[in-house]
Amino acid sequence: MNSGTNQQAFGKFSALIALTGEKTALELMPEYQNFKVITGKVGSMDLKKVISSVETAAKRNEMIDGELYRETHALYHAIIEAAEGVTRGKLSVGEVMRTVGLAFSVVRGSPYGDPAEGEWIAVCFYGTIGAPIKGKEHETLGLGINHI
Amino acid sequence: MNSGTNQQAFGKFSALIALTGEKTALELMPEYQNFKVITGKVGSMDLKKVISSVETAAKRNEMIDGELYRETHALYHAIIEAAEGVTRGKLSVGEVMRTVGLAFSVVRGSPYGDPAEGEWIAVCFYGTIGAPIKGKEHETLGLGINHI
Amino acid sequence: MNSGTNQQAFGKFSALIALTGEKTALELMPEYQNFKVITGKVGSMDLKKVISSVETAAKRNEMIDGELYRETHALYHAIIEAAEGVTRGKLSVGEVMRTVGLAFSVVRGSPYGDPAEGEWIAVCFYGTIGAPIKGKEHETLGLGINHI
Amino acid sequence: MNSGTNQQAFGKFSALIALTGEKTALELMPEYQNFKVITGKVGSMDLKKVISSVETAAKRNEMIDGELYRETHALYHAIIEAAEGVTRGKLSVGEVMRTVGLAFSVVRGSPYGDPAEGEWIAVCFYGTIGAPIKGKEHETLGLGINHI
Amino acid sequence: MNSGTNQQAFGKFSALIALTGEKTALELMPEYQNFKVITGKVGSMDLKKVISSVETAAKRNEMIDGELYRETHALYHAIIEAAEGVTRGKLSVGEVMRTVGLAFSVVRGSPYGDPAEGEWIAVCFYGTIGAPIKGKEHETLGLGINHI
Amino acid sequence: MNSGTNQQAFGKFSALIALTGEKTALELMPEYQNFKVITGKVGSMDLKKVISSVETAAKRNEMIDGELYRETHALYHAIIEAAEGVTRGKLSVGEVMRTVGLAFSVVRGSPYGDPAEGEWIAVCFYGTIGAPIKGKEHETLGLGINHI
Repeated sequence: MNSGTNQQAFGKFSALIALTGEKTALELMPEYQNFKVITGKVGSMDLKKVISSVETAAKRNEMIDGELYRETHALYHAIIEAAEGVTRGKLSVGEVMRTVGLAFSVVRGSPYGDPAEGEWIAVCFYGTIGAPIKGKEHETLGLGINHI
Repeated sequence: MNSGTNQQAFGKFSALIALTGEKTALELMPEYQNFKVITGKVGSMDLKKVISSVETAAKRNEMIDGELYRETHALYHAIIEAAEGVTRGKLSVGEVMRTVGLAFSVVRGSPYGDPAEGEWIAVCFYGTIGAPIKGKEHETLGLGINHI
Repeated sequence: MNSGTNQQAFGKFSALIALTGEKTALELMPEYQNFKVITGKVGSMDLKKVISSVETAAKRNEMIDGELYRETHALYHAIIEAAEGVTRGKLSVGEVMRTVGLAFSVVRGSPYGDPAEGEWIAVCFYGTIGAPIKGKEHETLGLGINHI
Repeated sequence: MNSGTNQQAFGKFSALIALTGEKTALELMPEYQNFKVITGKVGSMDLKKVISSVETAAKRNEMIDGELYRETHALYHAIIEAAEGVTRGKLSVGEVMRTVGLAFSVVRGSPYGDPAEGEWIAVCFYGTIGAPIKGKEHETLGLGINHI
Repeated sequence: MNSGTNQQAFGKFSALIALTGEKTALELMPEYQNFKVITGKVGSMDLKKVISSVETAAKRNEMIDGELYRETHALYHAIIEAAEGVTRGKLSVGEVMRTVGLAFSVVRGSPYGDPAEGEWIAVCFYGTIGAPIKGKEHETLGLGINHI
Repeated sequence: MNSGTNQQAFGKFSALIALTGEKTALELMPEYQNFKVITGKVGSMDLKKVISSVETAAKRNEMIDGELYRETHALYHAIIEAAEGVTRGKLSVGEVMRTVGLAFSVVRGSPYGDPAEGEWIAVCFYGTIGAPIKGKEHETLGLGINHI
C-alpha cells in the first residue's frame, strides 16, 4: 500500500476532484497544488464521445502535447482503464442500452519521490450509468493511471 | 446525472470512506450518517481472498444477513463490479502477476427518495495494484452498486 | 446442485419455455403454474434492440414495475447475463458481423423455500446466431438469473 | 431462426438432455435418436476440472477420436463456449469465489440437410453456480456448438 | 513447441506473408508453396468491415466454399481470434475511438503429418492501430487458426 | 498505415525475431541493428510464469532498469497486450486447461522520426498453445507495444 510520501496518492487526488470538485480536493490534499488539473463533464450513450471529450479537453488545456503520439498514447490508455471501471467488464455503453453522465478529472505530475520516475497521468470518471430514462441509473466510478 | 436529493450519492459516500476514512466522509456528507457502514483492509495476490474478506466482514458485522442467499447474491455482484474497476478489464490478480493492497468500504441504505426503491448496497475498493515488489505499484479504485 | 424442493428450478422452467414453448414446459413442470411468464421473439444485428425488446415486453405485460428502478435494474442484469450466454464472451452482435434470431422467456416468482428469499427473475434466450445470411447460423442459448 | 428440417435443432436436443435427461429429450425430439449422446456430472471450483471431465467422458465413450487433434480442438472450443454461458462473461469459477455443480451433455451428428455440412458437436451444461456454501447458489446454463 | 515436420508452422507462414509479403515468405518457407494463399488490405474504424473484407476475399478467391456454413463458420472464428490479437482484449475499434489499417493473409492447407487431421485455416492481420489521426498509431498483429 | 521511414516498423522487427530468429530478422530489416534486442523461451500452463520469464530476462539483460517502476510498468503492459494475442480474449492458460510453449522477443528503441517521441518497447510471443498433450496444439502469436 502507499506509504512514505503522500505524493504517491495523486490517483486519490484525481478521484476527490471528480467526486467533490477541485476546491474540496485541494483542501483535503494541499500538497498536490502543483499538479496540473483539468476537469469536465460528458453525457452520452456513445463511449467514443466520452473518450474524445477527455482527449479534447486535455489537448485544449495543454495538459498533454497533442502533437506527440507518446502523450496521446499514455492518455488514451489511462482513459480506457478508467472507462473499464465505469462500465465494469463490458467496455460498452449504448450497445448494451446504457447511458452515462460523467464528471471527469485529469491530473498530471510526478507522484514518486524519485525524479527518474518522471511524470504520470491519472484519469477519473464519476457520475451515473443506467437506462436512458431519468432516474433509472446508479453511480459509477473509474480510475486509470499511466506513465507519460 | 445525480440531481434532486443528495441521498442518491451513497456511492460517492462509500468512495469517500475508502479514500479518506469514515470520519472525513461524514464531515463532507453528514446526511449519510444513518447509512450502515463497514470498512476493512485486504492485501493479496488472490482475488478469491479479496472477495471473501469483504463477504466475511459484511456478515460478521451484520451488514448483510448471511443466512439469506438473496443478500449474499446482491453483495457478491457488488463486490465483483468493484473488482472490475480495480483490475480494469481482466478480473485477475495473481494469475497475471499482480498483487493488490486495498482498503474497502461497504455502505447499505435507501438512497432513492421513493421508499419503494428499497435498500441498495455499495462496495468501494481503493489502494494499490502492481508487481509483487514494494513500490512497483500504482493506485486503483473500484465501485460496485446493487439493489439488495 | 439443486436439491430439496423442485421450486428452485425456475431457471430450468424458463429454459424449457424458450426451447419448447410454455405449454410443453408446464406439462413437464406443472408445479410452476403460479409463476408469472412472458415470452417473445426478436431478430436483430443490434444487441440494444434485443435488450429493449425484453424490457418493453416485461413492462407492457406488468412483469416488472417500470416505475421502479430497482426492478428495471434487476431485469437489466438478468438480460445481460443471458446475453453473455448467447454471445459467448464477446457481448457484441452486429459489431462482429453476426445476427441473432431469438425466442425469449422471462419468469418471475419465489423459487426458494424460505419466503425471506423473496422474488427472483429468470431470462432465457434460445435461437440462432450467425452470419447475416439465411442458413449460415447455429443455435445459441443463454440464461440469466437475479433477485428482484 | 431455425426453419425447415428440425434436424438443425440438435443444440436444443443437447439442452433438453442436460435439463431433463436423455429419456425425456428423446420423447420430445425422437428424430434425434441416431445422434451420438453422452452425459455426465461434475462439481468443482476448478474450471480446468470441468473442462477435463467433459473431455475425458467424450474420449472414453468414443464420442471423439482422442488421437486426432482436429476432434480435440473442435470439442475444446465447444466446451469453452458452453462455459462462457455458465460463467457469464468471466470464464472463472474458483478464482472469483464461486463453485459449480453441473450436469452436461455432448451430442454429435449431422444437423444440416446438406451432407457436405458434415458433423457438428454440441456441449450443454446445466446446474448451479454460487458461493461454496449449500443453498447459496442459483441455476446456470451454457451451450457451445462447433463443426467437427 | 513445433517439432518434427516444419509443415506444422503454417501459422508462421501466414504471419510472414502479412508481415513481409508472399514472395519473401515463400523464400523463407518454400515447403509451403502448395498451400492456398490470399492477401488483402483493409482500413476502417468498423470491425464489421474488417471481418467482412476477409470473408469476401476468401469467398471471391475460392479459398472457402461460401455455400457451406461449415467453412464460413471455421473462417469466421479464425478471423475473430486474429482480431482479438489486433484489439488486445477489447474486440472493438471505432467504439473505443480507434482506427486500424491492416494487411491480412489467409492460408489453407494440411499442416499436420497425419492426413486424418485434414485441412486447417490460418488468418493473420498486421498493420497499425491508433487514434484516427495520421501518425498517432502503433503496430498491431493477430493470428487465428482453426480446423476447417 | 505506417509509411515514411521504415523505423516505425520495430513491431514487425520484433515479430520477425520471434518467428525466424534474430539473424534472419536483421537480414530482412538491417536498419534496426541499433535497437536493443533480447530473446528467450518459456513453456508453462501458468500465465504468471510466462510474464515473469519475460520480466526477468529484460531485467537481467538490462533491457529495462528494474529499479524504476516506470520501466517495469511499461514492460508489464506490453507483455499483457502480447499475451492477449496468445490467449485470444481469455487471458488464461492453465485455468482453461491449456499449455503454451513460446519463444519471445523484446525490442527497445526510438521508432518514430521525431526524437521527442522517445523510446518505445515491443514484446512478441510466438509458439504453440493447446491441450497439455504433445501434438494437440496449434500456433499462436501476440504483439504488445508501449511507450517507455
